Amino acid sequence: MTLAVSSRSRPSGTGSAPAQARVAVLGASGYSGLELARLALAHPGLEVVALASREHAGHPAGEMIVGLDADTRRLPPVVEPTALAESAAAGEFDTLVSCLPHGAWRALAAELPPLARSPKRIIDLSADRRDGSDGYVYGLPEAFRGEIAGATRLANPGCYPTAATLAVLPGVESGWLEGPLYVSALSGVSGAGRAGSLRTSFVELEGGASIYRAGTEHAHGKEMTAQLSRIAGTPMPLSFVPHLVPMARGIVATVHAKLSRPVSPGEAYSLWCERYAGEPFVRVLEPGTWPETRAVRGSNRCDVAVTTLHGGETLLATAAIDNLVKGAAGQAIQNLNLMLGWPETTGLTADGSPW
Amino acid sequence: MTLAVSSRSRPSGTGSAPAQARVAVLGASGYSGLELARLALAHPGLEVVALASREHAGHPAGEMIVGLDADTRRLPPVVEPTALAESAAAGEFDTLVSCLPHGAWRALAAELPPLARSPKRIIDLSADRRDGSDGYVYGLPEAFRGEIAGATRLANPGCYPTAATLAVLPGVESGWLEGPLYVSALSGVSGAGRAGSLRTSFVELEGGASIYRAGTEHAHGKEMTAQLSRIAGTPMPLSFVPHLVPMARGIVATVHAKLSRPVSPGEAYSLWCERYAGEPFVRVLEPGTWPETRAVRGSNRCDVAVTTLHGGETLLATAAIDNLVKGAAGQAIQNLNLMLGWPETTGLTADGSPW
Amino acid sequence: MTLAVSSRSRPSGTGSAPAQARVAVLGASGYSGLELARLALAHPGLEVVALASREHAGHPAGEMIVGLDADTRRLPPVVEPTALAESAAAGEFDTLVSCLPHGAWRALAAELPPLARSPKRIIDLSADRRDGSDGYVYGLPEAFRGEIAGATRLANPGCYPTAATLAVLPGVESGWLEGPLYVSALSGVSGAGRAGSLRTSFVELEGGASIYRAGTEHAHGKEMTAQLSRIAGTPMPLSFVPHLVPMARGIVATVHAKLSRPVSPGEAYSLWCERYAGEPFVRVLEPGTWPETRAVRGSNRCDVAVTTLHGGETLLATAAIDNLVKGAAGQAIQNLNLMLGWPETTGLTADGSPW
Amino acid sequence: MTLAVSSRSRPSGTGSAPAQARVAVLGASGYSGLELARLALAHPGLEVVALASREHAGHPAGEMIVGLDADTRRLPPVVEPTALAESAAAGEFDTLVSCLPHGAWRALAAELPPLARSPKRIIDLSADRRDGSDGYVYGLPEAFRGEIAGATRLANPGCYPTAATLAVLPGVESGWLEGPLYVSALSGVSGAGRAGSLRTSFVELEGGASIYRAGTEHAHGKEMTAQLSRIAGTPMPLSFVPHLVPMARGIVATVHAKLSRPVSPGEAYSLWCERYAGEPFVRVLEPGTWPETRAVRGSNRCDVAVTTLHGGETLLATAAIDNLVKGAAGQAIQNLNLMLGWPETTGLTADGSPW
Repeated sequence: MTLAVSSRSRPSGTGSAPAQARVAVLGASGYSGLELARLALAHPGLEVVALASREHAGHPAGEMIVGLDADTRRLPPVVEPTALAESAAAGEFDTLVSCLPHGAWRALAAELPPLARSPKRIIDLSADRRDGSDGYVYGLPEAFRGEIAGATRLANPGCYPTAATLAVLPGVESGWLEGPLYVSALSGVSGAGRAGSLRTSFVELEGGASIYRAGTEHAHGKEMTAQLSRIAGTPMPLSFVPHLVPMARGIVATVHAKLSRPVSPGEAYSLWCERYAGEPFVRVLEPGTWPETRAVRGSNRCDVAVTTLHGGETLLATAAIDNLVKGAAGQAIQNLNLMLGWPETTGLTADGSPW
Repeated sequence: MTLAVSSRSRPSGTGSAPAQARVAVLGASGYSGLELARLALAHPGLEVVALASREHAGHPAGEMIVGLDADTRRLPPVVEPTALAESAAAGEFDTLVSCLPHGAWRALAAELPPLARSPKRIIDLSADRRDGSDGYVYGLPEAFRGEIAGATRLANPGCYPTAATLAVLPGVESGWLEGPLYVSALSGVSGAGRAGSLRTSFVELEGGASIYRAGTEHAHGKEMTAQLSRIAGTPMPLSFVPHLVPMARGIVATVHAKLSRPVSPGEAYSLWCERYAGEPFVRVLEPGTWPETRAVRGSNRCDVAVTTLHGGETLLATAAIDNLVKGAAGQAIQNLNLMLGWPETTGLTADGSPW
Repeated sequence: MTLAVSSRSRPSGTGSAPAQARVAVLGASGYSGLELARLALAHPGLEVVALASREHAGHPAGEMIVGLDADTRRLPPVVEPTALAESAAAGEFDTLVSCLPHGAWRALAAELPPLARSPKRIIDLSADRRDGSDGYVYGLPEAFRGEIAGATRLANPGCYPTAATLAVLPGVESGWLEGPLYVSALSGVSGAGRAGSLRTSFVELEGGASIYRAGTEHAHGKEMTAQLSRIAGTPMPLSFVPHLVPMARGIVATVHAKLSRPVSPGEAYSLWCERYAGEPFVRVLEPGTWPETRAVRGSNRCDVAVTTLHGGETLLATAAIDNLVKGAAGQAIQNLNLMLGWPETTGLTADGSPW
Repeated sequence: MTLAVSSRSRPSGTGSAPAQARVAVLGASGYSGLELARLALAHPGLEVVALASREHAGHPAGEMIVGLDADTRRLPPVVEPTALAESAAAGEFDTLVSCLPHGAWRALAAELPPLARSPKRIIDLSADRRDGSDGYVYGLPEAFRGEIAGATRLANPGCYPTAATLAVLPGVESGWLEGPLYVSALSGVSGAGRAGSLRTSFVELEGGASIYRAGTEHAHGKEMTAQLSRIAGTPMPLSFVPHLVPMARGIVATVHAKLSRPVSPGEAYSLWCERYAGEPFVRVLEPGTWPETRAVRGSNRCDVAVTTLHGGETLLATAAIDNLVKGAAGQAIQNLNLMLGWPETTGLTADGSPW
């Protein structure tokens, strides 16, 4: 199931890059929070100094992180979110990663100004600052690596937008596509968060698939529109149809669009390959091969496939990611590596664990 | 799990409608064959006189039909497909339903002419005659009810084409849509047939989703194009992206298309409701509600939802069916009811069994 | 998925048996409540006059019973549980089936005496009266058919006790077994009820199995001990190890015990066959064949297999049921048929729907 | 999903321990073969010099190992099993791990004597040499660490025997238990191997559980009996009831037995804790807590829980493992570490990845 992280050597800390960052994880008991805690505990350059969770505060971290062999690890205490403010003010950590649900970090930050001010670096996994407010940089490394490197406040992208944007990025940057984009995507259930509810219960989901908030209703559709329009330099309307399917994790996204001029399948494939040649976490699949979530399970990689249809008039681009890794915690670590001036792949794996 | 069939009264046989049909099921050990055998055994107007399966020939039918309480039912013997030719010539059955894979019935018919000639009625669940060759009528009742009523040779539609066509039928008939259509659909694994293979094994599929044969590769895409073009009276190119998701049965289809003139969401909803008002097996979902497979599990119903986006320029239409019922065996029974002059709903249920 | 109920003919009502019973379902929105509503709506002798659910009161029944084709059925209104007291006093129904969780019906009955007094027949699916208090008869037809026939107050058995008891009933009645019994059983998730919780959420359960409340902790262990001791006429201690496995429905129970004298496998098989010969809902599997839940999915049947080991010193008996049918709603209907003097199989099926 | 291996430092090679072993994996395309390849590729002391698979020979390893980011890894070629004989004779590898199915390695070894003779170390994951023939040592480290350290030929235990033996080992060693043992266990589907078949197909397994080869039929029951009798120093008959449940990986085993003298729950718990105190890959769960497979998913750890019942007359002991790790490939690596004189935990993790 597991495979080694791609680099275990401690970041060398040459130049201005710090050798070690001290991290506090806020909202550590949700799925992205747990995934972030796991990745951070295994990261050679990160020291996890605090885990905050309203639900688990006061309990040993081992109870919260199922499966972790707590006996062999020095785990930090699990504290109330409010307790982080003091630690922040005291300089006990320099990096805060908030894995709270949408709205919660913004509210907490207003309530506890030192928590929002003191940390050198803040990464917010919620949707709250993806509009760029308060100086937050949108953290999709493949599109905005330059801005991220210098950032101290970072909004981590949504899982669906990560998959859909990476599927079409080369075409959008090149001005090949005319809106609207037609985006259809599937998600595993962990994307709905970790609060127990009838809607996400096993019996209600096993053996069935459904569409929800289709068209222009889902917040992730708005996020895609905003970011793709920014990249294109022109409004890029889209329709977004999300599906819930009976699996724990993974996203597959399919995008159709009209091409502004006829493009052959080979020409599209070449552009995608060229654009993603240096990207450590994007793989362009060979023609005739299509993405599957199990190839990226547990991995920070995004698999992408592209072709054109109808005499080159229609683009068909697809992508698969693990929503908890490249779609959440893994991408947060990738962004943090960039912010710290470390090799972008530190502590991350591009390998999936299909079974 | 089960709920009563909607009409258990025996067809009255008024006029020229026969009171009883004697049915042979060919390819009875595949998923659609088994489902057809179950439905036919429970149908008040059908007597199942033969089950043919190369794999199970000579064994008791109870071994093949897992779960059936064989003690309380008189099940016909399971014979070799070739043995049906004699029975056919001897007039032992009047209705043949072939649930063989693509190509197999066509080959067998060539090999055993009496089998292809003798039965009064033949329904073929494979793709072989969906092109209308040899006088086969395409059996989508909602679109071609008139032709079906008089037919003696019927090609049952594919599961994906049933879902995608019912999603957009009112719009295509009304000339509202411009091609290409962008079709994205999910299927449960039973759609891949019952032959054991690594590709459809539990470990390879659990917890993962994938795209396969996307664009213009899948035969069902060609079938949709042909039938929708026929209905529209004009070529209707499309892209079809099928996904395999980890569930046994069910299909969800999503179709995007450009509208030839701006149409409001309410106007689209009204057209769909009006068009499907008399249909016993199509339900138009209320605005803001989207299809889910569990609502139609075990049912012959198709749930449809429609809206428009981008100021009325884009149509978004969706549908869900049970691929083994409305997408295969149930639709075959519906067609057979029509061919026999019986109430179309005889022996079928519109109720789903979600858990 | 569905197959016809085994008898659709209306009970003839000869002798003192009423031709029709008017039923109110209390707790209709839980899994056993929904299953009971489905079975009752399809039962030829039952008229469902009220559905009560605190959560769904005031909403159309169609919203609660997912998949049901509400348009074609006259569904009763969904009312507050308290509203049933008035209906009961007014004689609007004669049969009350309570599908409330443990403790809730006992509490409601204390609060609303007319509800507990007025109905001619009450069936309680909870564990509250399985001790026989207040004149409630324990409703396992295969063991206590005589008592059930004359009952007006009935406690429906638990799902695990139904499976475990039917696995060993012939041996216990014959005095073959020495305690303790070692019972290991698996259950699908619907056995945990329909309240949304983290513990029963999809992501927490998919791909994993667990043991819970093992040994002598689980209330169903105590129920088994009590009933098996009653049947044996001697104390029958046992250990009960329940497992939660990732499926929606179904139970498999395995029982080991020491035999009080050496018994050959053939002798055990013969006793089981003989004992269950007349039972419409128990099937003894042939030697070498073992139970599987999919053979009884949606069915009221219990599949049983038995052998002996270690030179006849050890009994190994196993059983599979659908926890929502033979383990809950189906068995309640079976009991109700007996209470009403109708054929025991009315409105029930012994056929499973594996896929 | 992934978490770092517990030690990434290269074995120091002090004393006679080699600094690096060169490994060939035979049968690399099955589930245990793939898992072994993954673990070996990530192991700091192992160089994987050959992967052999009849099915994949000649194809790039990246096709076989789904999800692996082939671009960033130097993968060895995939060759025919026969080609390994030459490499072995040429001394290209010193360690052979056979992940072939039962019977196949024995047959191949007879056919290609150099392959069986040349490698310094051979580990066989099949059942063929678990009887100790040809000098093969039974590789359950917790019971036979001393023998393993000096071995050059090792038979890796079966998955069920690993779980069942670790559940009761302290009690058996201490002479507390009287036979027969009553063993009931659940397995995920990967335990059935990777050959595609109807029996292991998704549609046949999803949503259902079954018992198979129960009593004394399953080869793993015989293996448990043999090893536990050896450990006890007295015959230890048992009944073994395996269940197939719908998940990819994981085993839970439950063992009941009579105690030869009354033992309190606390006394049993203390013995288990004491016995396993120094074991890096066994964790004794606190009283009242029971094993679950997700806590050990992807981990080489075995979780064990124990209590006594019926006034101390009955032992109830349970265990959970990942069948592909502690039950196959991980245990093979653990054994190899011992054989090489390296720290036993090298390249292995005790952490699970529940989601």
